[in-house]
Amino acid sequence: MPQPFTPPDPNYVTRIRANFYKQTAMQTIGATLGEIRPGEVSIELPYSDHITQQDGFLHAGIITTIVDSACGYAAYSLMPANSRVLSIEFKVNLMSPAIGERFVAIGKVVKPGRTITVCSGEVLAFQDGESKLVALMQATMMRLEKE
Amino acid sequence: MPQPFTPPDPNYVTRIRANFYKQTAMQTIGATLGEIRPGEVSIELPYSDHITQQDGFLHAGIITTIVDSACGYAAYSLMPANSRVLSIEFKVNLMSPAIGERFVAIGKVVKPGRTITVCSGEVLAFQDGESKLVALMQATMMRLEKE
Amino acid sequence: MPQPFTPPDPNYVTRIRANFYKQTAMQTIGATLGEIRPGEVSIELPYSDHITQQDGFLHAGIITTIVDSACGYAAYSLMPANSRVLSIEFKVNLMSPAIGERFVAIGKVVKPGRTITVCSGEVLAFQDGESKLVALMQATMMRLEKE
Amino acid sequence: MPQPFTPPDPNYVTRIRANFYKQTAMQTIGATLGEIRPGEVSIELPYSDHITQQDGFLHAGIITTIVDSACGYAAYSLMPANSRVLSIEFKVNLMSPAIGERFVAIGKVVKPGRTITVCSGEVLAFQDGESKLVALMQATMMRLEKE
Repeated sequence: MPQPFTPPDPNYVTRIRANFYKQTAMQTIGATLGEIRPGEVSIELPYSDHITQQDGFLHAGIITTIVDSACGYAAYSLMPANSRVLSIEFKVNLMSPAIGERFVAIGKVVKPGRTITVCSGEVLAFQDGESKLVALMQATMMRLEKE
Repeated sequence: MPQPFTPPDPNYVTRIRANFYKQTAMQTIGATLGEIRPGEVSIELPYSDHITQQDGFLHAGIITTIVDSACGYAAYSLMPANSRVLSIEFKVNLMSPAIGERFVAIGKVVKPGRTITVCSGEVLAFQDGESKLVALMQATMMRLEKE
Repeated sequence: MPQPFTPPDPNYVTRIRANFYKQTAMQTIGATLGEIRPGEVSIELPYSDHITQQDGFLHAGIITTIVDSACGYAAYSLMPANSRVLSIEFKVNLMSPAIGERFVAIGKVVKPGRTITVCSGEVLAFQDGESKLVALMQATMMRLEKE
Repeated sequence: MPQPFTPPDPNYVTRIRANFYKQTAMQTIGATLGEIRPGEVSIELPYSDHITQQDGFLHAGIITTIVDSACGYAAYSLMPANSRVLSIEFKVNLMSPAIGERFVAIGKVVKPGRTITVCSGEVLAFQDGESKLVALMQATMMRLEKE
């Protein structure tokens, strides 16, 4: 189901890139921006042994970090230029151990709104050319005017 | 409302400490274990500028990382010695910008179970001797037998 | 932890009662308003065999109906007179089969806000003078101005 | 993305129909079973003024009732014959006022499992031949052996 969203700000890609590089948490964990489309943004994260839980899987909070940002940027891509975006809440199901060579979080806008945007996100783990769904997010993002 | 839980494993504190030091994500973000009681565990995190989002607040995913672990250990404290604990899902509300000198995540068991344990968690931000609630979690933890 | 909230509208009890009687779903399931305090509202529901799921327990959606309204009214109690309240999202954990003589849903404001209010709710089942926690809710309520 | 699930019990349709007619809550609100496919079940509900909230929209709890059952049956369709299904938790975003002539809840299995199945659900409102997404659910279902 393609989402034919039209961003009100034509510079949304530049705006998202600039914003991403201010998220120091992304550099700390080793994440990079992937594809940016209207209402859909992905973030990539190679496996690394400094971001695991006790069994050597990626920590659920780190998985959440990339999919929350992917959803936030998906929402942000459809907001006017003078906007700030804030996660007000999210829910994450963890469906398989987060093990693999690299992980891709994909955030998509389900319902954009003037104030509230609902997103859905997923995290795929890639290993030996195969992918597996490791997490599913449903998130509520809020638009604030830039001060 | 005190929770008069009795851990089936008297060595639950040692078991939690050993497990925590295997969570490399905790060292990466700078988190340490706080109090450990039956059904209630806290994790502390000083503010640091390597774990923020674009506005200099702690990233929502990092906040989630500490409160998810706090809830997981709260559940783990009430499990038999041969157990593994897994987050199967959680929901987080972010109520105030995560700004402060340090943060304390507190996870509490609401309903322990043989397989499924429901926890609630919160994250407080401390600044100038005052605290503020920045996040609220409701989480479902699952017990697996150690392989 | 008592919540020392001060309702901006002194007529909040009357306003909640009037609103409740417009919720036809409440009459259909047999629910009545319980206590109304600033930031805390309860709703009572006797067991009835017209609102069950396949095993004779109250349907999870009916349990959600009473605790959603309890949370909504808790939020509404702290809103100005010209407000409308809307559930924007909630999460419910179902912890025990919803079996009993009667059920009480209690909604409490955790963090009130100008636009967004976060609530937590629970549903207790009563049987033979004992109570059991059957459900836990974490909800986000939104304030709109009355048109 | 078609979901090529193969139900272990060839009589899953009969089993779901029999189960549905025991859900008295469904008759009370006026809901009927729609399509039943492996891993995907829909439930229909005409608008009726006995199941509303204060503004005449369907109550969020009633919307939850149909989408919870749709998700539960989607999970149940992929379970062996001797199974019981239980909602252990769900999260619902309410995206538009639930107004329309009729409503269709669609539940889909995202990840089936031996014990835990993750589902996603949506509720569409139909009015004058057009449909609108009114709610989105992410749910965790649990399999128990029939006693």
